[in-house]
Amino acid sequence: MSDTVKVLIWGFGAMGSGMARALLGKTGVEISGICDMHPQRRGKSMLEVLKMNSGGADSAGAGTGGSAGPGYPRDVVIRESIEEAMEDARDASIALLATDSFTRKAYEKIITLIEAGYNIISTAEEMAYPAAGEPELAGKIHENAAKAGVTVLGTGINPGLIMDLLVVMMTGACLDIDHIQAERVNSLSPFGPAVMEEQGVGLSPEEFRRGAQDGSLAGHVGFQESIGMIADALGWKLSAPIRQSMEAIVTGVPRRTEYASVEPGDVAGCRMEGHGEVDGVTRIEMLHPQQIEPEAEGIETGDYIRIKGTPNINLQIKPEVPGGIGTIAMCINMIPHVINASPGLKTMLDLPVPRAILGDMREMIHQ
Amino acid sequence: MSDTVKVLIWGFGAMGSGMARALLGKTGVEISGICDMHPQRRGKSMLEVLKMNSGGADSAGAGTGGSAGPGYPRDVVIRESIEEAMEDARDASIALLATDSFTRKAYEKIITLIEAGYNIISTAEEMAYPAAGEPELAGKIHENAAKAGVTVLGTGINPGLIMDLLVVMMTGACLDIDHIQAERVNSLSPFGPAVMEEQGVGLSPEEFRRGAQDGSLAGHVGFQESIGMIADALGWKLSAPIRQSMEAIVTGVPRRTEYASVEPGDVAGCRMEGHGEVDGVTRIEMLHPQQIEPEAEGIETGDYIRIKGTPNINLQIKPEVPGGIGTIAMCINMIPHVINASPGLKTMLDLPVPRAILGDMREMIHQ
Repeated sequence: MSDTVKVLIWGFGAMGSGMARALLGKTGVEISGICDMHPQRRGKSMLEVLKMNSGGADSAGAGTGGSAGPGYPRDVVIRESIEEAMEDARDASIALLATDSFTRKAYEKIITLIEAGYNIISTAEEMAYPAAGEPELAGKIHENAAKAGVTVLGTGINPGLIMDLLVVMMTGACLDIDHIQAERVNSLSPFGPAVMEEQGVGLSPEEFRRGAQDGSLAGHVGFQESIGMIADALGWKLSAPIRQSMEAIVTGVPRRTEYASVEPGDVAGCRMEGHGEVDGVTRIEMLHPQQIEPEAEGIETGDYIRIKGTPNINLQIKPEVPGGIGTIAMCINMIPHVINASPGLKTMLDLPVPRAILGDMREMIHQ
Repeated sequence: MSDTVKVLIWGFGAMGSGMARALLGKTGVEISGICDMHPQRRGKSMLEVLKMNSGGADSAGAGTGGSAGPGYPRDVVIRESIEEAMEDARDASIALLATDSFTRKAYEKIITLIEAGYNIISTAEEMAYPAAGEPELAGKIHENAAKAGVTVLGTGINPGLIMDLLVVMMTGACLDIDHIQAERVNSLSPFGPAVMEEQGVGLSPEEFRRGAQDGSLAGHVGFQESIGMIADALGWKLSAPIRQSMEAIVTGVPRRTEYASVEPGDVAGCRMEGHGEVDGVTRIEMLHPQQIEPEAEGIETGDYIRIKGTPNINLQIKPEVPGGIGTIAMCINMIPHVINASPGLKTMLDLPVPRAILGDMREMIHQ
């Protein structure tokens, strides 16, 4: 059996800390370094930030982390600089990068990690299929990774699984396909202020319209990636740039969550649509309304895949696979596949299917 | 771009001929040899048997097939002996083997194809995860394939996708799992006499009971494979042999199909269940009632996956993905993945996700 899998985590927000917590519950894997610049986290110990403090962590320790008491995992200090975190994680074979949504923003970090010899899993939505939006950067990442002998993957729940990889897999049961529709109706209620801002929750419809027009509202990042991934997988050549639209979901009733509160007439979420054309015909359609407290207006959440072809396939998941846990799970569950893969930039199309890791992670590493 | 993908087909019944018909509609792939012993097919030309006869086929031709007119595909003669078919298909890189359900029965054929240097896709249900039921033969197939530098895969709709690979993929969105239930409620109406006999359709309940007891009724072949695949994927160690049960579905109303006709009190199908235990607890449960004309008694067909874990996942496909087309699609859609794979015996767990091939198959071949 191979050695314990050692992991470096860059970015210790909701995703990074969630991955750490999940990894601490697994066998055959260990966290050996963490980088996060946030003033409330840097310099603290991982277990302290996760509120799992054993009392044994040494937040001013020597970099390899304090030795926690028996039954407690090895603790590590959260470093402000990636150089220090990489020094702590000299033994790590893989880095989880949970800092950005866009390939362009994550790019320098990815190159830094590649040059230091880490395999990488990125949560950046655009990295789920970077060739779609950033072909030049994708090429450079591939080249650098291949040269360094490491593998780079972007994944998450969406993009990464629900509106793309799952669609692709279901087409595997088809001989022919006319049209694909993927719809994800989900709740934003569990999310914090950053997501509320991205999705325009709490704005007036007029403010939302301005934000959509001037590009300051991000909405869902991933249609370009999901549509590009599906088209490439099937061998469809997109005949036009992907069209996207974004509309406010205006609430008719008050809706409240821990982080947001909207009154009738306010924006409770963002409805996005995306269209991919092949030879002038829309073949791939994405529908993705995201909002807080959808049940307040009787909206049932769910994931839906509707394939018109030979045969038709009509799939639903109700309620939807939750985004936060789902992304955390996808990232940690792909660790063995990324370590096992040949060097270069990979996508979910290239690797074996994700699977929950319930046994010893070391048994999943080849060689 | 690589050369046209050339295919040998062994077994030209419903599955083999369906694969041929599907391949003839694809680009970048060609059928170069066919073997089938059936008196109604051997010696005839492929296009004749497929009722696509161009008039240009030469059924007494020189082995490489007659040259059909423009717009018609290259025709081939269906050979009674595999040696002759392999001679026709000297240029083929992959063989589709659609002759058996059991690994033991397909074994000699697989070895013959391996020794002749073909990559192989088998429709045999047990070959979808041969390590579960025939670990010794699986080991030998792997060894021989690795030595010969070819790849061997078993696949189909079920086992192969619905009750195993799709389940595994959905666990990829999970951090933890307590219990998995996969249910497939499907119609046997499109199937012919062989399937009716396997499933006991048309028997009296007493005849069914005897057949189930003495093993002459096959029912669904694949629970051992699907449960084994899921357990291995997740790192669960099964603590007991897989338990299976088989019961008659007795109809209360008359039901008719092209190939079967049952009266109230007769057997209209077969309900199978399978259970996989981990540490004495049932963790994996398979429910699979198959019958003709289920709607006659108000039964809706569908595929259902219910995962109890973090998070819960509740997936359904309604109606079910049809078995015949689905198996044909899975086999031909996996051709590029098998050609691209490293040598040895592979399972669906090892390869990238299946996907419909709508473009040129040559573009999917690496190198």
